[in-house]
Amino acid sequence: MTTTLADCRARDAQDPLRALRDLFTLPEGVVYLDGNSLGPLPRATPERVAQVVREEWGQGLIRSWNTAGWFEQPRRQGDRIATLIGAEPGEVVATDSTSINLFKVLSAALASVAADAPARRTVLSERSNFPTDLYIAESLCRDRGFRLVLLEEDEIPHALRDDTAVLMLTHVNYRTGAMHDMAALTARAHAAGALVVWDLAHSAGAVEVDLTRADADYAVGCGYKYLNGGPGAPAFAWVHPRHADRFWQPLAGWWGHAQPFAFTPDYQPAPGSARYLCGTQGILGLAALECGLDTVLAAEPLGGMPALRRKSLALTDLFIALVEERCAGHGLDLATPREHARRGSQVCLTRNDGAYAIVQALIARGVIGDFRAGRPDILRFGCTPLYLRFEDVWHAVEQLRLVLVEEEWRRPEFHQAQAVT
Amino acid sequence: MTTTLADCRARDAQDPLRALRDLFTLPEGVVYLDGNSLGPLPRATPERVAQVVREEWGQGLIRSWNTAGWFEQPRRQGDRIATLIGAEPGEVVATDSTSINLFKVLSAALASVAADAPARRTVLSERSNFPTDLYIAESLCRDRGFRLVLLEEDEIPHALRDDTAVLMLTHVNYRTGAMHDMAALTARAHAAGALVVWDLAHSAGAVEVDLTRADADYAVGCGYKYLNGGPGAPAFAWVHPRHADRFWQPLAGWWGHAQPFAFTPDYQPAPGSARYLCGTQGILGLAALECGLDTVLAAEPLGGMPALRRKSLALTDLFIALVEERCAGHGLDLATPREHARRGSQVCLTRNDGAYAIVQALIARGVIGDFRAGRPDILRFGCTPLYLRFEDVWHAVEQLRLVLVEEEWRRPEFHQAQAVT
Repeated sequence: MTTTLADCRARDAQDPLRALRDLFTLPEGVVYLDGNSLGPLPRATPERVAQVVREEWGQGLIRSWNTAGWFEQPRRQGDRIATLIGAEPGEVVATDSTSINLFKVLSAALASVAADAPARRTVLSERSNFPTDLYIAESLCRDRGFRLVLLEEDEIPHALRDDTAVLMLTHVNYRTGAMHDMAALTARAHAAGALVVWDLAHSAGAVEVDLTRADADYAVGCGYKYLNGGPGAPAFAWVHPRHADRFWQPLAGWWGHAQPFAFTPDYQPAPGSARYLCGTQGILGLAALECGLDTVLAAEPLGGMPALRRKSLALTDLFIALVEERCAGHGLDLATPREHARRGSQVCLTRNDGAYAIVQALIARGVIGDFRAGRPDILRFGCTPLYLRFEDVWHAVEQLRLVLVEEEWRRPEFHQAQAVT
Repeated sequence: MTTTLADCRARDAQDPLRALRDLFTLPEGVVYLDGNSLGPLPRATPERVAQVVREEWGQGLIRSWNTAGWFEQPRRQGDRIATLIGAEPGEVVATDSTSINLFKVLSAALASVAADAPARRTVLSERSNFPTDLYIAESLCRDRGFRLVLLEEDEIPHALRDDTAVLMLTHVNYRTGAMHDMAALTARAHAAGALVVWDLAHSAGAVEVDLTRADADYAVGCGYKYLNGGPGAPAFAWVHPRHADRFWQPLAGWWGHAQPFAFTPDYQPAPGSARYLCGTQGILGLAALECGLDTVLAAEPLGGMPALRRKSLALTDLFIALVEERCAGHGLDLATPREHARRGSQVCLTRNDGAYAIVQALIARGVIGDFRAGRPDILRFGCTPLYLRFEDVWHAVEQLRLVLVEEEWRRPEFHQAQAVT
């Protein structure tokens, strides 16, 4: 029995989260399946950012560092992120970029290992990890005398040995949407005597994360994907309390000082995660992140992350089923795991040729997904339960079917290269 | 012969830069003397930021990385900053915070010395440097096996020896407004075989800077002070071309990769200063920085930085003269050098007691300067020629006189502590 548009509409009518879509401004005629790259604009953001610009900055001027609470924003928004990732108040700071935060926490992890287990000199990660994570690890390993070893996913458990210092993984893979078992891998790494650093870029706000229950050591994540904080929004860093006070991270700036306004010439790190702050933070970006977090936290009375996760899985299940029902015979394969426990919040398809042009043709038809080059190339469709309807999934797959059936993707205009993020 | 308000108004009428004030939105009844801490709101910024939020983000969504040129913004705004500091296109990137950029360039400088002159193990700086600069240097020196030595200003020339790796200075002192002779100190450091890193936080947009003519090695600076980029605006980094391609900086993120969208697992740094980029940048902050730079660059047809500098010196000369004429006998001393070549764009006064409360009483009267604790405490008044009138200086000093004559600063409400930046 095939799925119909009417079926999808019926599911939307029964969706307990359906009202959350109204928290966003989405362009007319667009099905947005790239919230895993850049979340869409929350309806409240323009006014809040305008208020920060015109009133807090324009009228309050320098006084707003105090009167508008600017200085507290990284910790205040960090506390709100904490509720989404199984962390406690005071453990998360919203600041800088994911790459820079990874540098901070991996530095601290390596310092910890160097002190406690100096014979451990290997950092393990996945070859398919997001490249910037590997670049940061490569750079730090070189500077600190560690060795970075890149593995395939199935090699990880066996590679955890008595020379492993740190296991550094991205929880949900950016290309395939495959999700690691955070608790199991963390336990396995700890059993081998290693620390674990998790990148939650494609997890925070997308899937249930419980860093405390998993007993993870360090984590970072992104503010502009599922947290809807806007282009280049501040990222975040989390440090388990057992590590937080042990070492400085090297980006020891005044915002991480115990008394930032004492202006002492020597550095005294603030207690806890606040020492993962460095320099002055972008207040416009933090204000937009605040509005983005509002949209995710608005799901709390409706069941919170478990409810979002249920809908996310229902959306990706539907996407997969519709592709298999309606686009069969067009050379598409599924890169995302079918098993719920192994799937993030996106559906990734592969095709031997034409993937880039298919994505461009879909964008021209108002269905915005994205393309990731590789072997094979990937068509990536993020399914964000905050604003995506089951009907949207139906339309997206229908447009995909038309692009394939009519071979529209062969048109030259869809083969022009563009940088994408 | 004393100076009158009428004299000041006459100078304003003849000021060739007077129209630039209209580029800003300044609160009614406020004389803003804290643009050296946070520049005021340019009139064009709210609309531009709203456009980025509503149109580029809200309607363009992920496509705006290409169609709105987001990805190019750090280099595009870097090129515009370059014109203000004697650098060439391609040499400056607008990114991250000043602290983080200092970490990058000081890392590169230390790598350079370690390769070329490994016996040089000392980094020299000033005890009165902005603390975050010292914290970053302290952290890096510890990690890299260097020694950080803090000096008084007059000790610097003699401390440059054959063990000096790097001289790291802030060009204009944040507390006193004293300015170093960049060309002379750079030459002296080079003669001793050391590299020089300049922090231009209180220089860029405030005084004439010519990094190329001074033959400096590395520089960083701030976007939210004299460049009017808004609270926590992106900072900038400059690297002399002779150094730019030699080493990576350790914050080796994907934005500094030679092919950021190839997503290769290994890091290949971009040529030149682009390798000083790391992760995804805040686009709202960059848009506001663009508007801030517009205000400084609007002075170009009116004489540019030399004209701004002439007015800045005239304003600070006037401030000093009026304080000495009208506030004599109230225990104020001048901390800022009288000599033009030694003075930045601010006037700093000291007083044995009550400095904090005097600043608070002035703020209550609409004159916004700031306070910096120390021995002695400092009252700091930034004089930004883009929007400050000679008349404003007269009013500011008149309010200061009243606060002192009426001992208004003794009121308890002006003694409540607040964090300030």
